[in-house]
Amino acid sequence: MNGAESLVRTLVASDVDICFANPGTSEMHFVAALDHVPGIRCVLGLAEGVVTGAADGYARIAGKPAATLLHLGPGLANGLSNIHNARKANSPMVNVIGEHATYHLQYDAPLTADIEGLARPLSHWIGYARSAGDVARLGAEAVAAARSNAGQIAALILPADTAWDAAPAGAAARIEPPARPKVDEAAIRAGAAALKRGGANAMLLLGGAALYGRALRLAGRIQAATGCRLSGQGANARIERGPDLPDVGRIPFVVDQAVAYLKPVAELVLLGARNPVAFFAYPGKPSLLAAADCTLTEVAVIEADLEDALERLADALAAPKDFTLPPKPALPAMPSGGVTLDGIAAVVARLLPDNAILADESVTSGRGIFGALAGGVRHDWLQNMGGSIGYSMPVAVGAALAAPDRKVVSLTGDGSAFYTLQALWSMARENLNITAVVFANRRYAILRNELSNVGAANPGPRAIDMLTLDRPNPDWVKLAEGHGVAAERAVDLDGFAAALGRALAERGPRLIELVF
Amino acid sequence: MNGAESLVRTLVASDVDICFANPGTSEMHFVAALDHVPGIRCVLGLAEGVVTGAADGYARIAGKPAATLLHLGPGLANGLSNIHNARKANSPMVNVIGEHATYHLQYDAPLTADIEGLARPLSHWIGYARSAGDVARLGAEAVAAARSNAGQIAALILPADTAWDAAPAGAAARIEPPARPKVDEAAIRAGAAALKRGGANAMLLLGGAALYGRALRLAGRIQAATGCRLSGQGANARIERGPDLPDVGRIPFVVDQAVAYLKPVAELVLLGARNPVAFFAYPGKPSLLAAADCTLTEVAVIEADLEDALERLADALAAPKDFTLPPKPALPAMPSGGVTLDGIAAVVARLLPDNAILADESVTSGRGIFGALAGGVRHDWLQNMGGSIGYSMPVAVGAALAAPDRKVVSLTGDGSAFYTLQALWSMARENLNITAVVFANRRYAILRNELSNVGAANPGPRAIDMLTLDRPNPDWVKLAEGHGVAAERAVDLDGFAAALGRALAERGPRLIELVF
Repeated sequence: MNGAESLVRTLVASDVDICFANPGTSEMHFVAALDHVPGIRCVLGLAEGVVTGAADGYARIAGKPAATLLHLGPGLANGLSNIHNARKANSPMVNVIGEHATYHLQYDAPLTADIEGLARPLSHWIGYARSAGDVARLGAEAVAAARSNAGQIAALILPADTAWDAAPAGAAARIEPPARPKVDEAAIRAGAAALKRGGANAMLLLGGAALYGRALRLAGRIQAATGCRLSGQGANARIERGPDLPDVGRIPFVVDQAVAYLKPVAELVLLGARNPVAFFAYPGKPSLLAAADCTLTEVAVIEADLEDALERLADALAAPKDFTLPPKPALPAMPSGGVTLDGIAAVVARLLPDNAILADESVTSGRGIFGALAGGVRHDWLQNMGGSIGYSMPVAVGAALAAPDRKVVSLTGDGSAFYTLQALWSMARENLNITAVVFANRRYAILRNELSNVGAANPGPRAIDMLTLDRPNPDWVKLAEGHGVAAERAVDLDGFAAALGRALAERGPRLIELVF
Repeated sequence: MNGAESLVRTLVASDVDICFANPGTSEMHFVAALDHVPGIRCVLGLAEGVVTGAADGYARIAGKPAATLLHLGPGLANGLSNIHNARKANSPMVNVIGEHATYHLQYDAPLTADIEGLARPLSHWIGYARSAGDVARLGAEAVAAARSNAGQIAALILPADTAWDAAPAGAAARIEPPARPKVDEAAIRAGAAALKRGGANAMLLLGGAALYGRALRLAGRIQAATGCRLSGQGANARIERGPDLPDVGRIPFVVDQAVAYLKPVAELVLLGARNPVAFFAYPGKPSLLAAADCTLTEVAVIEADLEDALERLADALAAPKDFTLPPKPALPAMPSGGVTLDGIAAVVARLLPDNAILADESVTSGRGIFGALAGGVRHDWLQNMGGSIGYSMPVAVGAALAAPDRKVVSLTGDGSAFYTLQALWSMARENLNITAVVFANRRYAILRNELSNVGAANPGPRAIDMLTLDRPNPDWVKLAEGHGVAAERAVDLDGFAAALGRALAERGPRLIELVF
């Protein structure tokens, strides 16, 4: 058994069952090992932003890390921005990065780069194999590191000779990460007291694993007992929503709206969430969003056992186990006519199939969708927590592979979609059950607002040019078809509803370009 | 004047006349300043790999740095792989990277990342503005750093408040970088002695600025005096070629071929080049390519004044100023019929217009083109020196902007082209005079060879899948048209010749997909 095979067998033993890859020469033994060793599905991405974004999406839905296979420093570099997003979302990920053979490094061949240096700013754990005998142990440690705390980024650097040399000891056994620490009793008591004090003016701000599964249901008990508001952060890795689940709000992106959202909150109780901050600084606007006289109580950091914290908090509040959820808002009526942002939201909210997964990067175009879906079917809502655009379509790829029986909907602005449009090809190759909606307003619309928000008034034609995707207008139908994905264009809400209905009714990938 | 305007004015004063950009909120003041201050053309790229690759191409042809404008850590990260390529090619580049306002950094907002950490592995110079008063001085230093030595990567990190705060001192004056050091007389004497000793078994291995302009003509004198072979490295930033220029060979990529190419060389004289090394390590093959008994003489490192070194070397050899170039090989005949690699080479060699610029990333498909063009028209041949794929189309964008009167031809394999296909949109927006040829063999053909080269024999279907771009077949005509670039497909040499002829006869961007 060579080092590469010892690594693949170790990954399988560690419950890693998928590898997103764009390999090169230095990774050929790993690729070959995937053929000899069953247990890992290997999915090709045509650029590394697809590869790492897909690993993020897979982790969010599967609840465990995927592996990636990246080609030396530049392959890692291309994947870094979606690693950044995954890191901010606490998605576990095991990045296997090929490297020149140890003895070849001294010659500074063209692809030589400081891989550890490139990995360090965005990785929680870095391992560098010095010999084939190292590889299996490091592989097991990498998976354990990825699964530690709330989910981490592990980087395993694999020189080519450590992959091709013999590894007589073979695979390594799975290493269990430490259990999530339980919060101490004082924090539970402080949280309960704050929620009681605040009543309807308290907000339980949830993050990480508190936003889905049994944890979220426990938050509903707490709300029933205290009347507090429940909210996620501005961006959240995964919020579970549906008729039988408590409705969780979100902090708006726009600073003034965020301040207004938090203004009534006298008691802000953090559970897996952080003190809310503005996405960007703006001249004359605050960085911290909570009211100046709001009391903050941190019950649990995101690394803690959030389900346990919620259960003890509910018990401390003597919260009822049977309770009625507050009524949900009605779904908006199906709209018609020209494209409006409310209309977009209503179409998506009315047509979304039960148990869908939404990877939302709709930016300005889709700001109404989350609210419109409050009274909708059950779904998971995934967001970009790192702010690096080009996250949605790759994340949809990974989510669809993690949940092949669910419809995945990627909602993305055209500016964002361009970053990782190669994800469409992976959707086609793997025949993934994804509907991708591209909101083609042909501009970085958010930046038009931001120009005035930062006080750069009266932009001239050259500034406007930098924020505009026209001249020429992209044709997303052709871009999708060029990647092997069927597509159609809509220019009004009726056309959008018809196209979305068709796409959602079908199994497999399909893209809709909504031009407005 | 705010910090952003002080920077733009400083860049203009420092002879930076173009900025490739994909800005975000934190860069809005810089964008606004570009509208107030004349002198910098701003070109939008839809992903940062396009932005940094275009800056590389611009620098190679214009001989001076372009600026880039990148959005925080993730924007830089997306551009790193083409920064890696530019660094290896010694292309000067000034990367301006937006950052959160200094006071906002403490809050770890979503886009917060360790920008300095990400920049360090691939930058020669890093500046971080602490206040608006810093910005102009750092801008001038950044340009000087980029123009230092043989060409360097400068990273200037610009927190948003240092851009929007007042900078009363205004712009800074241009800083001259130190002159290129001249090599000492002993090195010239040693080089001359080695070339005399070796005669026809000597090779003068040229790199950097020795491969074009007057320097290359001086190399011709030396060849005329000594009978030595002239060669570039395996990859070269820019080789000037043409009927009135000495023919310069290249070290082959494949190790066995490279060893054979260098085998007769008893005296290897390095002038701006390095001791040749294999692109990758392979089991049982050497990393160093020169024959074991070959004598190495280093006359000049790439940072030295290479033109001066060549002139003194020529004088030391009493090389004639008037001489006849060795005869060039004849151009191959125009081929016909099914696609062959020799046929591809012949079509390109016969149709290339005078004074064209080729950005070559044709990998396996185009290996014959360089040789076929030895007897062709005058042209510049640009190569990927860092090995990170996705370089050609962005470099073509930059080259076309640096030389609007010349035809630029991008030759790229389909696997490489996918990495930065968004470059097509910038070609369309700027109406650049580029013919892009995509060799659509629908596989990472080079990796099929590499699998056996590294000894990973008998690949199974899962390994083959990772090296194959079929299922589905990409449609490059649609991909180009989706980006606003006219395109056509050819499936044989006659169709390729006809399509290439049409594209080269037209001004403006056009793509040809050659399927085989």
